[in-house]
Amino acid sequence: MSAAGTLVAVGLGPGDPELITLKALRALQSARAVAYFAKAGNRSNALAIAAAHLRSDVPQLPLLYPVTTELDHKSDAYRRAICDFFDQSAATLARELDRGVTVAVICEGDPLFYGSYMHLHERLARRYRTEVVAGVTGMSGCWSSVGAPIAQGDDVFTVLPGTLAEEELARRIRDTDAAVIMKVGRNLPKVRRALARTGRLDRALYVERGTMNGAKAMRLADKSDDVAPYFAIVLVPGWEARRGSGAGGGT
Amino acid sequence: MSAAGTLVAVGLGPGDPELITLKALRALQSARAVAYFAKAGNRSNALAIAAAHLRSDVPQLPLLYPVTTELDHKSDAYRRAICDFFDQSAATLARELDRGVTVAVICEGDPLFYGSYMHLHERLARRYRTEVVAGVTGMSGCWSSVGAPIAQGDDVFTVLPGTLAEEELARRIRDTDAAVIMKVGRNLPKVRRALARTGRLDRALYVERGTMNGAKAMRLADKSDDVAPYFAIVLVPGWEARRGSGAGGGT
Repeated sequence: MSAAGTLVAVGLGPGDPELITLKALRALQSARAVAYFAKAGNRSNALAIAAAHLRSDVPQLPLLYPVTTELDHKSDAYRRAICDFFDQSAATLARELDRGVTVAVICEGDPLFYGSYMHLHERLARRYRTEVVAGVTGMSGCWSSVGAPIAQGDDVFTVLPGTLAEEELARRIRDTDAAVIMKVGRNLPKVRRALARTGRLDRALYVERGTMNGAKAMRLADKSDDVAPYFAIVLVPGWEARRGSGAGGGT
Repeated sequence: MSAAGTLVAVGLGPGDPELITLKALRALQSARAVAYFAKAGNRSNALAIAAAHLRSDVPQLPLLYPVTTELDHKSDAYRRAICDFFDQSAATLARELDRGVTVAVICEGDPLFYGSYMHLHERLARRYRTEVVAGVTGMSGCWSSVGAPIAQGDDVFTVLPGTLAEEELARRIRDTDAAVIMKVGRNLPKVRRALARTGRLDRALYVERGTMNGAKAMRLADKSDDVAPYFAIVLVPGWEARRGSGAGGGT
């Protein structure tokens, strides 16, 4: 009886293929199958990042999100469709693992930080030997690309989804030293109003496509339109005490 | 007249030398001087991570924190000593940059996320060409090493310093889906009480030394003593909606 394969979640970083770690590279080189999530008809970002390092003799397992545009995303029917999809994806990987195949699931950013891989992890990590290769997050890629020190010393740092109500966004922005607002997209006008209400609009930075080709960054206050892709993020740097002193600094 | 050198902040990741990025490696290879922060008498963690990749012909510039144990850390005298130290460190680097030398400042984790490098960035980035190479953060290294999915979907994620008062810690833990508590050390009994008060102690994980040699991890509830190093962290995973559904998931 042969042993089961290992499930390896491989964080690939925020987009720049140079931000792949040595550990991720070695995981790609030793995997016997490579799985990735993608929307049907769209190219996988993870696949684009890893492209130069994938071996042509290693089979790829695309896990294609079901097309559910006809369903309300808060409906039970949508939730069921997505849940079934993750169940089926886990079953696909389990078949390979049972045959002794080590499967790398390639992930943008860091696998356990808002990543789709987590749905597979929940379904498989108790049954199979599992390794997670940490990656540079999308938000680190963004603040590094614009050279914006984000949090220091005893700062409280908060990640907020742009989907929150304006009142709730404003309350939470007021209650933190530094913030990253994700899932900006159509929420940009609301995010902008929440920042203006809290006096933080002047510090906020808008970043689109992070470290990828076609990256854009500017002060949010200077952005003249409200058009933003879903994955654009807004940075609200903390470390307010920095001016003219070393205070607030950690070591 | 020769051009000034470039200041390059190099994120080295959380400790495992395999978690260095390709971009960091190339930055180390092209630097003509390597600077790092360290406590006098202590080995630099950044130097330990980068050791295998440093060229013996490239000079090293240790930036040694002043010994200030005799000063109260909230006193003006302490702040002045630390501020002077960062001023002097920036001047040391500026001398090299003015001579046309490209200087890599090697940093544990991610340079702009609670990193000492930020004090140099504030002092030099407006005067010299500057690049920041994002790194895997210490916290990503920790949740990956224990396989703990930390945040998903519309979760609010918060980084809290363990130095906050118990009441404030409890309030903020109650107000977030997922949290990372840093600077645990002597604050562990207080952190434990704040988690117990909010009903989150059972979910909390204690991680010591992350991805480094001698890493330790356990449920905080199972840790029988309150001895913890300063850089230990506590993870409070979010994604509470995950059980039995794909709900709350992003893509």
